[in-house]
Amino acid sequence: MAYNLLKGKKGIIFGALDENSIAWKTAQHCYAEGAQIVLTNAPIALRMGTINKLAEEIQAPVIPADVTVAADIENLFTQAMEHFGGQVDFVLHSIGMSINVRKSIPYYENNYEFTHKGFDISALSLHRVLQTAMKLDAISEWGSVVALTYIAAQRVFPDYNDMADNKAVLESIARNFGYFYGSKKKVRINTVSQSPTRTTAGSGVKGFDGFINYAEKMSPLGNADADQCADYVVTLFSDLTRMVTMQNLFHDGGFSFTGVTQAVIEQMEK
Amino acid sequence: MAYNLLKGKKGIIFGALDENSIAWKTAQHCYAEGAQIVLTNAPIALRMGTINKLAEEIQAPVIPADVTVAADIENLFTQAMEHFGGQVDFVLHSIGMSINVRKSIPYYENNYEFTHKGFDISALSLHRVLQTAMKLDAISEWGSVVALTYIAAQRVFPDYNDMADNKAVLESIARNFGYFYGSKKKVRINTVSQSPTRTTAGSGVKGFDGFINYAEKMSPLGNADADQCADYVVTLFSDLTRMVTMQNLFHDGGFSFTGVTQAVIEQMEK
Amino acid sequence: MAYNLLKGKKGIIFGALDENSIAWKTAQHCYAEGAQIVLTNAPIALRMGTINKLAEEIQAPVIPADVTVAADIENLFTQAMEHFGGQVDFVLHSIGMSINVRKSIPYYENNYEFTHKGFDISALSLHRVLQTAMKLDAISEWGSVVALTYIAAQRVFPDYNDMADNKAVLESIARNFGYFYGSKKKVRINTVSQSPTRTTAGSGVKGFDGFINYAEKMSPLGNADADQCADYVVTLFSDLTRMVTMQNLFHDGGFSFTGVTQAVIEQMEK
Amino acid sequence: MAYNLLKGKKGIIFGALDENSIAWKTAQHCYAEGAQIVLTNAPIALRMGTINKLAEEIQAPVIPADVTVAADIENLFTQAMEHFGGQVDFVLHSIGMSINVRKSIPYYENNYEFTHKGFDISALSLHRVLQTAMKLDAISEWGSVVALTYIAAQRVFPDYNDMADNKAVLESIARNFGYFYGSKKKVRINTVSQSPTRTTAGSGVKGFDGFINYAEKMSPLGNADADQCADYVVTLFSDLTRMVTMQNLFHDGGFSFTGVTQAVIEQMEK
Repeated sequence: MAYNLLKGKKGIIFGALDENSIAWKTAQHCYAEGAQIVLTNAPIALRMGTINKLAEEIQAPVIPADVTVAADIENLFTQAMEHFGGQVDFVLHSIGMSINVRKSIPYYENNYEFTHKGFDISALSLHRVLQTAMKLDAISEWGSVVALTYIAAQRVFPDYNDMADNKAVLESIARNFGYFYGSKKKVRINTVSQSPTRTTAGSGVKGFDGFINYAEKMSPLGNADADQCADYVVTLFSDLTRMVTMQNLFHDGGFSFTGVTQAVIEQMEK
Repeated sequence: MAYNLLKGKKGIIFGALDENSIAWKTAQHCYAEGAQIVLTNAPIALRMGTINKLAEEIQAPVIPADVTVAADIENLFTQAMEHFGGQVDFVLHSIGMSINVRKSIPYYENNYEFTHKGFDISALSLHRVLQTAMKLDAISEWGSVVALTYIAAQRVFPDYNDMADNKAVLESIARNFGYFYGSKKKVRINTVSQSPTRTTAGSGVKGFDGFINYAEKMSPLGNADADQCADYVVTLFSDLTRMVTMQNLFHDGGFSFTGVTQAVIEQMEK
Repeated sequence: MAYNLLKGKKGIIFGALDENSIAWKTAQHCYAEGAQIVLTNAPIALRMGTINKLAEEIQAPVIPADVTVAADIENLFTQAMEHFGGQVDFVLHSIGMSINVRKSIPYYENNYEFTHKGFDISALSLHRVLQTAMKLDAISEWGSVVALTYIAAQRVFPDYNDMADNKAVLESIARNFGYFYGSKKKVRINTVSQSPTRTTAGSGVKGFDGFINYAEKMSPLGNADADQCADYVVTLFSDLTRMVTMQNLFHDGGFSFTGVTQAVIEQMEK
Repeated sequence: MAYNLLKGKKGIIFGALDENSIAWKTAQHCYAEGAQIVLTNAPIALRMGTINKLAEEIQAPVIPADVTVAADIENLFTQAMEHFGGQVDFVLHSIGMSINVRKSIPYYENNYEFTHKGFDISALSLHRVLQTAMKLDAISEWGSVVALTYIAAQRVFPDYNDMADNKAVLESIARNFGYFYGSKKKVRINTVSQSPTRTTAGSGVKGFDGFINYAEKMSPLGNADADQCADYVVTLFSDLTRMVTMQNLFHDGGFSFTGVTQAVIEQMEK
């Protein structure tokens, strides 16, 4: 079902690796709602994933960009504006990577070179995208930027490791840049804190299965899936949410404000 | 501009007093998005306001209900379901009243009879509406309930008086009932924390003008108005936000996460 | 071990029922730290409990007061000031009661007469105590008021029932009155959000045992006990924390900011 | 006035530059409360400041350590344990530096090399200190670590620049490491979010004077000063707060939960 909610809007989607990606679903839903899309990802992710299938389906060019390289971001926005014939209306930031997680290095033994790398890719990349966009005046007035995050930024989930710190600073960057971009150009910036989701990236985290079951039992509506997340992000890109900015918005079936459920209590009594 | 976002949906709107009301605007926007509406308000508010004008415009019956009387709420849902020929899909709770505020009694000299009355009307009314709806099984699966609130539930705004406490408990009721209604019937319940708005009710608060100017200067996007609030509520009633529940959602141009702005600093230096 | 942290200070302790009460322990620790104490409780609680044993031990008069009756509170402060020969320096509010909980009425079937009663005793009582104290100028400059609360004010714990709403408004009252009492008289007001504790009151809650075990497993330091809570409250009554006000302070071994623990994950896999 | 609250305890204080430093005052208060202290700071800060005066006054050795160098931290703990003849009981982390701030580079034009440097010094340094301490088993059971932070981690203060992001991640590190250190060794870790304070470091921030006046007017008790902060930190190092961990504790005269004050409203009407 489509509503033309994004008719005439143009957006850049970061992070669509394969058909399990939230970014992939979001690109599809935005397209179904009438938007034109430019897809982007890191060169290595473009090689590993299947983005061309999506690109064809939604008639979107793919512009490679390494989010740790300012020149790449600048090139991305310049080319996107050429392609669209004008400014960009929305941006999805769905990017995260931790070498400490990948190598199963416990949080209390983190390698700081890896930490810096993860911080640069997972968090500072949002700042870089926004700073470049502002410099090029690439986002239209009342444009909307969404970055995906996780509740580990507020509470400890031990296996999430240094990604928790990366998400905390990502949310801080959304707030702080949201202030400046909002004051100057009416651009709004929010983060969506999504249920644990069976993406190719998410599945890499140690103990993910046990954890996703716990989250399911702790959420009155169950875990939100990638399609539902895409729906929600569409509303945030639409003109109906213009005054929502600098917020971290939980999309999680109620997990975030549930202290315990009957199902978990029963499991604890076993 | 309409998207048919609520096509086929049926909703009850509490609290449309006159054309400045957020509830009034919300009813109009829901209607424009394809929903059928039942309007309701307290008998005295129906007499004081101009609701019949709205009722005609959006072809909605008006069913009087005193939210402090369970039988009234029960009658409202029963009649609404008869009118709709089925369950209700959404409910807007836009109700608040404090006699301590009206009589300009300072917070530290509150009359507790008035406090109880305000608590009953402003906060417990949400519980009563939900409890009655659950008993009658009046809300459809994946239905959506929104109650309007204010940031005084989180931080102190001295002139907001005991309405701050009422809003705090209103938000708590949304969370707690959201857990049970979500677990049992997939109904979601959220509060929207709106910028100070020039409604007939809002204007009654002492020092409202000075305050609304402060809020405007403290919000990177400025204050959100009633029409924008209505837009936002529409997204929360739509099927695109099904997994958002038990949340308090700020709709305030960024006020809630702004510590200070350049404009306020400059004013402080005068 | 005692430090004379409260030497020369005078305080009123509400809610010491028996030796399991947090208020009981707090009275003992305050006395050990050099304070003079006045004990108070509702007449019925005085009959049911064993407060005279404590009164003797810490040489404190017991002044009955029903916290729903303004005249009782006024009498309490007047007599306490006579006893002390001056103003009161600290107050502990450890009061809570829900008839809906006692009668095992589910949250979604609450009796509102009971709700009003619980609201009056559990939450509004704090307002009444503060309003009376302010009227009588009964609390000294830089005095400290602490009320005990629970994390159900932030997140849903289903069996906590309408006490969750009562605690939400209690915390709101602490904030709002804290603003006025702080501005006018430098009195600070905070709430302490304590781990579930095996008190006579706490044990009455349905499913308490399963829950306390869950909390223990979800707290990196384990649950805080009543003696530790008393220690913490002593610091908040001392002169070392004069600038802490309007806060809700978690005293819970880390429960509040833990999303999940290894121990819980393992239990979920059983 | 001293209570012997820290009698027999041994602690390391980072960041005492000169007599305006919060760390300086904290070292003095800890000493007055019976603790033995080791002072440390970066070599350049040792040269610029007047730490030897303090060292003499409180009979504390000064061990230089660059917090971005693991070997320095390891040497610090090793020497401190030798000096104390055993484990450390408490640590104060009062460290922050942003080159973007120093060079008055606006947030939306930040230099990312500077950002990484600031992140390493201001935030990751806490992780490095804790990781090293855990590896060396340098902190005693029930030991206490406090890091100083600022409310810009929660809400935007435009001139605070990228230090806001640094403080957000600092608080996240306190939570995450608090989980692991608490579970393994009963060590607690908290952050104290202090009023803007006229330290040599704080004064360097652009618009600091206007801002500190605003904060004063927005705090029911006024701004907390460095001496009061030291008092509060002493309570967190004491045995009376053993179950407080993974918290961010506001020490700010009520600023954090005040939405507006009468004084600010009046200023806005000028």
